[in-house]
Amino acid sequence: MNALTLGVTWLDYAAVAVFGATGALAAARRNHDIVTFAFFAAVTGVGGGTLRDLLIGAPVFWVGRPAYVLACIAPALAIWLFGFGRTRETALLWLDALGMAAYAVVGAAKAEAHGAPPVSAVVMGILTATFGGVVRDVLAGEPSVLLRREVYVTAALLGAGAYVALNAIGVEQRLASLIGFAAALGLRSAAITWHWSLPGFRGRSPKDGD
Amino acid sequence: MNALTLGVTWLDYAAVAVFGATGALAAARRNHDIVTFAFFAAVTGVGGGTLRDLLIGAPVFWVGRPAYVLACIAPALAIWLFGFGRTRETALLWLDALGMAAYAVVGAAKAEAHGAPPVSAVVMGILTATFGGVVRDVLAGEPSVLLRREVYVTAALLGAGAYVALNAIGVEQRLASLIGFAAALGLRSAAITWHWSLPGFRGRSPKDGD
Amino acid sequence: MNALTLGVTWLDYAAVAVFGATGALAAARRNHDIVTFAFFAAVTGVGGGTLRDLLIGAPVFWVGRPAYVLACIAPALAIWLFGFGRTRETALLWLDALGMAAYAVVGAAKAEAHGAPPVSAVVMGILTATFGGVVRDVLAGEPSVLLRREVYVTAALLGAGAYVALNAIGVEQRLASLIGFAAALGLRSAAITWHWSLPGFRGRSPKDGD
Repeated sequence: MNALTLGVTWLDYAAVAVFGATGALAAARRNHDIVTFAFFAAVTGVGGGTLRDLLIGAPVFWVGRPAYVLACIAPALAIWLFGFGRTRETALLWLDALGMAAYAVVGAAKAEAHGAPPVSAVVMGILTATFGGVVRDVLAGEPSVLLRREVYVTAALLGAGAYVALNAIGVEQRLASLIGFAAALGLRSAAITWHWSLPGFRGRSPKDGD
Repeated sequence: MNALTLGVTWLDYAAVAVFGATGALAAARRNHDIVTFAFFAAVTGVGGGTLRDLLIGAPVFWVGRPAYVLACIAPALAIWLFGFGRTRETALLWLDALGMAAYAVVGAAKAEAHGAPPVSAVVMGILTATFGGVVRDVLAGEPSVLLRREVYVTAALLGAGAYVALNAIGVEQRLASLIGFAAALGLRSAAITWHWSLPGFRGRSPKDGD
Repeated sequence: MNALTLGVTWLDYAAVAVFGATGALAAARRNHDIVTFAFFAAVTGVGGGTLRDLLIGAPVFWVGRPAYVLACIAPALAIWLFGFGRTRETALLWLDALGMAAYAVVGAAKAEAHGAPPVSAVVMGILTATFGGVVRDVLAGEPSVLLRREVYVTAALLGAGAYVALNAIGVEQRLASLIGFAAALGLRSAAITWHWSLPGFRGRSPKDGD
């Protein structure tokens, strides 16, 4: 379990930093100042995990270990100083997919460790993976990932669901984590590569007659 | 108290489901995909009670009982599958009024049970009844009920206020609940029927001279 | 410590009232009704401290002492009744600066008192000083202070940072509070007077080629 914890911790910092970078990128798109860079990076990086911890009643992870906050802000400063080209934006899209997949599993695992039942653990995995980005987009006044039809929340759902299901049927936790992570990353990668999107609602619109 | 608790529990699930349906409706208006339907339904359905529980320091109600989450998502799936006409939207407006009235009282009662003083209990009733819808609207990028002059928050205030006041002067809890519920529902029904709205601010606008 | 506590309590109520007034002002700009006035006043007044308390795991300050909520709503009612001219708006800008400076220090101090490490205490000071206004602006559908390049978050950062740093090197708490408060207020005042703003991001935009 120690090796796992260590691995999860590193994954955690990496995911926080990657999400922080996407927050800074949102700030860069509108030529914001350095303080806004740092704020967006921090909110995006730790937002999902913060909501998860509040909901499951755990101490909020970064308050006692503010190195997480610094892990968000460091990439924001780097982007501020060195700028940001299209190649790096593509890189970030893929890093974000990694972070999302990691968080879906880490979020579900932490919730189960705090006694959450399976369905709630899946919800926590989804929230951890997506909430930071949603808050980033709401603060920036941009349409969030929820309002696009990208396969993003779905990938988090698959990853967290696979992890929780495998865990429930007794698969060893490290293996379950790996499969969950791979499932989320695989679906998201396919969606990025082939521009997959979910079909929109085609039922009768409420604006039509009846 | 057991009968009351049972009644409140059923009311609770019903209110969660109704609010979930209004969340799915918001998603339907913009032809979103099924995952966004479920997300909006869940946020709208459990958002208000989640905020209440965080603020009063209670365990978040749906984390330990994820059937609440399923109660939000079920109507979202139904709307996705069977579509949505104008008659049903009208039905939903009235169901939403029922849910709001139920939540105003349930929210205030739970806050008092956790030791909140009267004014805070009224605030919790209002938040439980309205916060889910506000988050739904902010996420959807629509003007929330706060920005329209509808008699909605006011009805929640009346219901929660009546319940707390009657409780404070010693009226039996079940009766106080009923009166609070009826007051909120009555005011909201009247507002829907006769298109009541509150007067807007007519003081000197800050943009005028002084 | 008693005198300090008393002073901090009064400062606290004053800051809550001032922020409440800025929330009511936001409602006044769009001619909202009286319930929305009160809602915006309450969210703006207690929002920052609420987030701080949730994050550090403290009981939310106003739930047990709803006089804080009334302290937000009172100025909202006054603005509703007596209107609002340009002179008063200017007054409010300065009162808001006072409230921000007070909250930056109070937020950091409360976080440290709850065992938060220095970096987290600074973050809590910033959040306490700014979050209420950010939520107010998101609810109102206006660009928040984060999206303008004003020296506002920066002033909160300076005040909370100065307080925490001085505290860490052993300066007496009352003196550290005073210096932190003066630093935040001084920087903000200068920014208001001379229309200071931070430079925007000038790195290569992600929309350019690479």
